[in-house]
Amino acid sequence: MKLPKHGANPAHLYEASEIEKPEHVIDFSVNTNPYGPPGWLKTAWPSFLETIEDYPDPSGKVAKEAIARRLSVSPEHLLLGNGAAEIIHFIARHAAGQRAVIVTPAFSEYEEACRAYGCIVDYVSVDPENWVLPVGKLVELAKGAAVLFLCTPNNPTGQMFQREELLALFRQTRSHNILIVVDEAFYDFNSEESIISELDAFPHVAVLHSMTKMYAVAGLRIGYVAATTKIIDALSQYRPHWNVNAVALQTAERIACDREHAEKTRERMNNERSWVVRELAASGFLVLPSAVNFYLLRDPALNDQKPLLQFLLRQGIVLRHTENFHGLEGKWLRSAVKLRSENEQLLAALKEWKRL
Amino acid sequence: MKLPKHGANPAHLYEASEIEKPEHVIDFSVNTNPYGPPGWLKTAWPSFLETIEDYPDPSGKVAKEAIARRLSVSPEHLLLGNGAAEIIHFIARHAAGQRAVIVTPAFSEYEEACRAYGCIVDYVSVDPENWVLPVGKLVELAKGAAVLFLCTPNNPTGQMFQREELLALFRQTRSHNILIVVDEAFYDFNSEESIISELDAFPHVAVLHSMTKMYAVAGLRIGYVAATTKIIDALSQYRPHWNVNAVALQTAERIACDREHAEKTRERMNNERSWVVRELAASGFLVLPSAVNFYLLRDPALNDQKPLLQFLLRQGIVLRHTENFHGLEGKWLRSAVKLRSENEQLLAALKEWKRL
Repeated sequence: MKLPKHGANPAHLYEASEIEKPEHVIDFSVNTNPYGPPGWLKTAWPSFLETIEDYPDPSGKVAKEAIARRLSVSPEHLLLGNGAAEIIHFIARHAAGQRAVIVTPAFSEYEEACRAYGCIVDYVSVDPENWVLPVGKLVELAKGAAVLFLCTPNNPTGQMFQREELLALFRQTRSHNILIVVDEAFYDFNSEESIISELDAFPHVAVLHSMTKMYAVAGLRIGYVAATTKIIDALSQYRPHWNVNAVALQTAERIACDREHAEKTRERMNNERSWVVRELAASGFLVLPSAVNFYLLRDPALNDQKPLLQFLLRQGIVLRHTENFHGLEGKWLRSAVKLRSENEQLLAALKEWKRL
Repeated sequence: MKLPKHGANPAHLYEASEIEKPEHVIDFSVNTNPYGPPGWLKTAWPSFLETIEDYPDPSGKVAKEAIARRLSVSPEHLLLGNGAAEIIHFIARHAAGQRAVIVTPAFSEYEEACRAYGCIVDYVSVDPENWVLPVGKLVELAKGAAVLFLCTPNNPTGQMFQREELLALFRQTRSHNILIVVDEAFYDFNSEESIISELDAFPHVAVLHSMTKMYAVAGLRIGYVAATTKIIDALSQYRPHWNVNAVALQTAERIACDREHAEKTRERMNNERSWVVRELAASGFLVLPSAVNFYLLRDPALNDQKPLLQFLLRQGIVLRHTENFHGLEGKWLRSAVKLRSENEQLLAALKEWKRL
């Protein structure tokens, strides 16, 4: 049986791996904030019940205005989606039947969506051990393509492309008839400014954000894209009416007003990630430098990491396989940075593996 | 300014009509259950908070199984959507660039979606005063078309096509290479059995249901389509991952287990509708027979009902205009059956109009 295409679904992974699921498992394959959602969510929750009888505002006006203020953009430059995944589908629809370029490894939904809309997909792989954007090659491939997807901070590698590399790509593709999509779903786990601040100069660039990873509300589905009005209008055509539900809209508005949760998380996360990465390296594992809340690791003694993945599954430790990531093909495992006690359990299991 | 394309958004309608919105308005343009959501929703609501940290199950397995039991179908014959509107977009994608037939008047989202996917759209209008499905004409038009949409009980007319008419259409199009979509979004406001029970004999038919109208949770977005596995698999290709959020899945599962709320609503609604329709007729208005929770009405003294719509808006009574419904073009107004006290206010305002 094929391994699942996405993480955050341990039961599915155990079933596909034909390993009996222990009673207690820790899911390191999920990439949301390990410290949980902001405290106000619990307080506000009862009031959300009152909003669900009515249809949600189809334009999401109030939430969009709050997000626009947070990003210092105009609300007309935003489109809300039922998760960023829905917006990826609108973009794929926009490029239907044409050529799409995907910088890999990357979130597998770009490819899924592009294939659903009959795109011809070209991949450009970046070596996770030498994380440099191949600008020249991309500019060449961008000729005649309708869309180019790249993800930074990157899922699954956790690494960021240099701002100067991105701007070079934007400048050199400005005269091509292409949409450059920068997926910054994890941007707020890092303190570097979003590339959204450069959009005025580059009308062919769209930036995707997710609101549910940092704020730990993945069940609610809230994402958005920032771009010129022209791109927003084009993508809006494919949007089903009332696509963002009332609870998501209420939450999105409040998230946009809460910078503190992100700031506190970043500080705590940076410390925790430094600690766990150091410990892993000391135990003989290769770990790639990460800018966010997850990282790639491997046992250098193995090429395909599947035996290690399976060993950990038996211990109730669920990592994310990389078999369906172009450019990784199972040579790495992705792990989330979680709470100290959970990270300690991961380390203990990995040390046990080394002793075998 | 053009009137809004959908009901249930009074502020938007006032703005478009350039009428100042009174402090208190009653929204008869919304078609959800006037008696509100089931009592268990309030009790269960706090527990839903626990489900939103994690990604929703992308397959919606538990909710789908509960719906399958309720409908006596297999779960493989169902696909869940972020509202029926999302599924309408999957269907339009399926028919992209081909010919679509829409039996009108009907919910405007079919046309919106078909146009977004470059379909050529043919309309077949049914006279709301002679509500008979034009089977022969549809069978002719269905040749070479990819999809045919019809809505029964019909939004906006509130009327149902005869089961025998539908079965005749199904039989006579079985050898065409067409998908017949029956939108039964309001089926549970009527006691007649859903046409889903006939699907085994007709592999080219798909039936759409909404869960949010009867159960008054329009803010949550939950719909599904029932069809053969082949159709479900084809439509699933266009589904973004995690398209139904965790709160919607929790609610859908419970709704599927609650027949009582629908039964009680139907009984109460039938009585209320009979009463209001009788009163309206006695006051000199034309009202079409309705099988559900809304009906069409008109003042026979006017062709275009806009002056009446505007008069009522000034009184804080919001009806649904029919200007963007093919085959109605403003000659009728749609009104929801609401609570007795609200229906009385509508009647009082209409009597006032007659006295002018």
